[in-house]
Amino acid sequence: MADIMQTYQALCDHAREAAMVESIRAVLGWDEQTYMPPQAGDYRAEQITWLAAASHRRRTDPRVGEWLAACEDSELVEDSHGDSATVIRELKRDYQKRSKLPQSLVEEMARATVLGQQAWVQARKDDDFASFSPVLTQIIDLKRQQAEAVGYEESPYDALLDDYEPGETTANVHRVLSSLREDLVPLVAAIAESSTQPEVEILSRSYPVALQKQLGEQVSAQIGFDFQRGRLDVTHHPFCSGMGPFDCRITTRYDEHFFPMAFFGILHESGHGIYDQGLRTDFYGLPPGEFISLGIHESQSRMWENQVGRGRAFWQYMFPTLQETFASALTDVTLDQFYFALNEVRPSLIRVEADEVTYNLHIIIRFELEQALIQGDLQVPDLPAAWREKYREFLGIEPPSDADGVLQDIHWGAGLIGYFPTYSLGNLYSAQFFAQATEDLGDLEDMFSRGEFMPLKHWLQEKIHQPGKCYRASELVERITGQPLSHEPLLAYLRAKLEPLYGIG
Amino acid sequence: MADIMQTYQALCDHAREAAMVESIRAVLGWDEQTYMPPQAGDYRAEQITWLAAASHRRRTDPRVGEWLAACEDSELVEDSHGDSATVIRELKRDYQKRSKLPQSLVEEMARATVLGQQAWVQARKDDDFASFSPVLTQIIDLKRQQAEAVGYEESPYDALLDDYEPGETTANVHRVLSSLREDLVPLVAAIAESSTQPEVEILSRSYPVALQKQLGEQVSAQIGFDFQRGRLDVTHHPFCSGMGPFDCRITTRYDEHFFPMAFFGILHESGHGIYDQGLRTDFYGLPPGEFISLGIHESQSRMWENQVGRGRAFWQYMFPTLQETFASALTDVTLDQFYFALNEVRPSLIRVEADEVTYNLHIIIRFELEQALIQGDLQVPDLPAAWREKYREFLGIEPPSDADGVLQDIHWGAGLIGYFPTYSLGNLYSAQFFAQATEDLGDLEDMFSRGEFMPLKHWLQEKIHQPGKCYRASELVERITGQPLSHEPLLAYLRAKLEPLYGIG
Repeated sequence: MADIMQTYQALCDHAREAAMVESIRAVLGWDEQTYMPPQAGDYRAEQITWLAAASHRRRTDPRVGEWLAACEDSELVEDSHGDSATVIRELKRDYQKRSKLPQSLVEEMARATVLGQQAWVQARKDDDFASFSPVLTQIIDLKRQQAEAVGYEESPYDALLDDYEPGETTANVHRVLSSLREDLVPLVAAIAESSTQPEVEILSRSYPVALQKQLGEQVSAQIGFDFQRGRLDVTHHPFCSGMGPFDCRITTRYDEHFFPMAFFGILHESGHGIYDQGLRTDFYGLPPGEFISLGIHESQSRMWENQVGRGRAFWQYMFPTLQETFASALTDVTLDQFYFALNEVRPSLIRVEADEVTYNLHIIIRFELEQALIQGDLQVPDLPAAWREKYREFLGIEPPSDADGVLQDIHWGAGLIGYFPTYSLGNLYSAQFFAQATEDLGDLEDMFSRGEFMPLKHWLQEKIHQPGKCYRASELVERITGQPLSHEPLLAYLRAKLEPLYGIG
Repeated sequence: MADIMQTYQALCDHAREAAMVESIRAVLGWDEQTYMPPQAGDYRAEQITWLAAASHRRRTDPRVGEWLAACEDSELVEDSHGDSATVIRELKRDYQKRSKLPQSLVEEMARATVLGQQAWVQARKDDDFASFSPVLTQIIDLKRQQAEAVGYEESPYDALLDDYEPGETTANVHRVLSSLREDLVPLVAAIAESSTQPEVEILSRSYPVALQKQLGEQVSAQIGFDFQRGRLDVTHHPFCSGMGPFDCRITTRYDEHFFPMAFFGILHESGHGIYDQGLRTDFYGLPPGEFISLGIHESQSRMWENQVGRGRAFWQYMFPTLQETFASALTDVTLDQFYFALNEVRPSLIRVEADEVTYNLHIIIRFELEQALIQGDLQVPDLPAAWREKYREFLGIEPPSDADGVLQDIHWGAGLIGYFPTYSLGNLYSAQFFAQATEDLGDLEDMFSRGEFMPLKHWLQEKIHQPGKCYRASELVERITGQPLSHEPLLAYLRAKLEPLYGIG
């Protein structure tokens, strides 16, 4: 037993060291997006490549395999959701996945995705899918090789999805998202046909950036993001990045003439940040102190952004402050007008600007298309046509250009295939968790209307953040809600909010 | 020859990798001082310790010794100031110095200086030298061990000075600083007795920080600091840090009611930054692309701060802009009143607030005291009394407390012994270089009065920045000015400026 404990300690120390290298990389990545001088990019790429190689070398060190082999039948794994079992299970999973990838494939992928991102930037600018098509074809081919190398049970897409949503299957996601789509398409149509529509012009008035920033930081702190352990900066693409047990950075971007962008962006990233800050710091760098999956991470950002931040109770509390802060924009606006404007539903072309209903249709389109690419049912050159067809079918609109269509997202050019569905999984989990929180905590709306957000934050922390990776996402959802992943809570939430607003249903 | 070239390439690649690790450490150090959240400090210390160990491991890799041995009698060293000879000479110097230090001493020093800095913070706060005395005693003892381990010719202090001013000797610095002191003490006394004194109240009027920042960035760019390859931020202790061939960050601090602090701070750090940006980028991470010494670095910051920035010609050009920017503070002030106020000379207690004349006396005091400590002629508990005596003797004032006396600088608690004299060496080199630049370029004052700073910048770049470490500081000074290190150009510069202002001489 003493020997096993020493071996286990060596395994943990080694993993923590790899995590430290990754945390250093996160600092450099954050700096690159926020403050780095314009000409410093090339050397920064070299620094980051060096750190990536240094952590990969540690993660694939053959000693890890030996330590794991020594630990995996010991009493350390007896309690399968306990900390030591989680360390061993998750480090083994990571070690095996990495070890199955040939070094040549890792390097080709790194090269192709650097080129892919560069080609994407240019192609989007020029509205020229043909120039992006060859490198995307290569990336898809490498991704299929990756799936074969890693292995899968049913579908090669399973192997890719598993990188972002460990243990989740294509079939299960397909089942839930198809049901969701079937119910959302008619809901979107009914909303579009309603004669009651919000006055969205309210949101494009002048909201001075300095005041937005001040209010944003205040609200972020109020819902529980800890500025002693984090900060908020400005970047072109907003993100949340943890770089230590007491260091989590979120970012946003401001538009004086579009209030929702920064405000809901800050709520969203704060939600990610509150998850990161809610993890157990004593397990920093080890699986029990790590987030479960991108879907669960997204459920936290979406809950604060949508279930909380787009709710009427939240604005009951917040609107007087808002009216005071942006007096010239809001003197003639009522709470209900403002609340309705924030909840406009309207089919649009760009995913990142979509409302919380149609957003999922954008995701489902990408999920279906990337599955078809990986299965070989769709060829890259045929992608723009397939894209337009799906948009017509699900959203009733068609992009006038590829730049605002198939070229709008960086993901595929960066090799992120299997990533998109985690956005909708986040929405689904979020609704399931929120329904349960309401059951457990009583009238959350009433609390929000008084500015009380800590009961929800502490519930999330206890139920979702503290367990880290001790459960798979599917296990956690069942454990907390007693139900498997389902589209019904999300649909019920959307209907309950939108039908009264639009006078439908 | 092909073999030697491969070995030399391996040596260079290895050194560049170590430099990359050090550049990553610099990013983390910069972030720690600028934007890091308050609670993130402990983990940041771990990250930085890991990186320091990673670079030290590379710098002491036995293969470096083998590569150097293979290269050092080859034709690569034929041109002794050429790039390859410089690479080999300087990497050998570094390798040998590091290899002579026992690992136990390195670790004890790391521990003692962490404790030393903590103890210093507390002792300064409490004005309690006695609480700092034991750890400083230990640091002095370790520094003496370091000197013995590394070796020296005449004085153990030589071995410490050599860390910051490679190749310089205690005897030579003593010779020049003693001559300087002998001439400065009567100059300071004559100035103090003069009936003509500046109206320094002008400088403490209201100078709004936002405008100071805007003006500071503009002037920094104007003298040649490249914001495409650098930035300016706010920190408590201003510094300049290079973190890549195209990434140099400078910092300052603002005081609304003391104009000179940020303005001359920015000129000073910009001078450091212009040196860093003037190094050959293709040799980044190798000695021909590295700065020579702290003294030469300081000569660049001091030249832009003092010879340029405190000169009348500079203000002839700048004062109209200043008057426009800070209209309410400066409407009733003339160029000559302002210029005189900027050049006030007055003995004071705090080094970092001293004028350019008395500053050197602060340094000489520290230089003499730390020499005595290292030679064993002075014991740490007797340091406060010795400090007061020197201040009485050289500056005619005495600190009312140790907090404003012997405890004012962090250097000794951080183990930086041998560092102080480089500040005055910087002033001396600066005056020597500036006199030569005037000879080479003609009427610099006339150029400055028209806002033309590029001729001087390009002269510095060609003569001082581009050679990197291909010359020792003493060689470079002789090469550029035809003279060895001397106190006369600095004295002549100070007299030429101050005697007319104060009506003396």
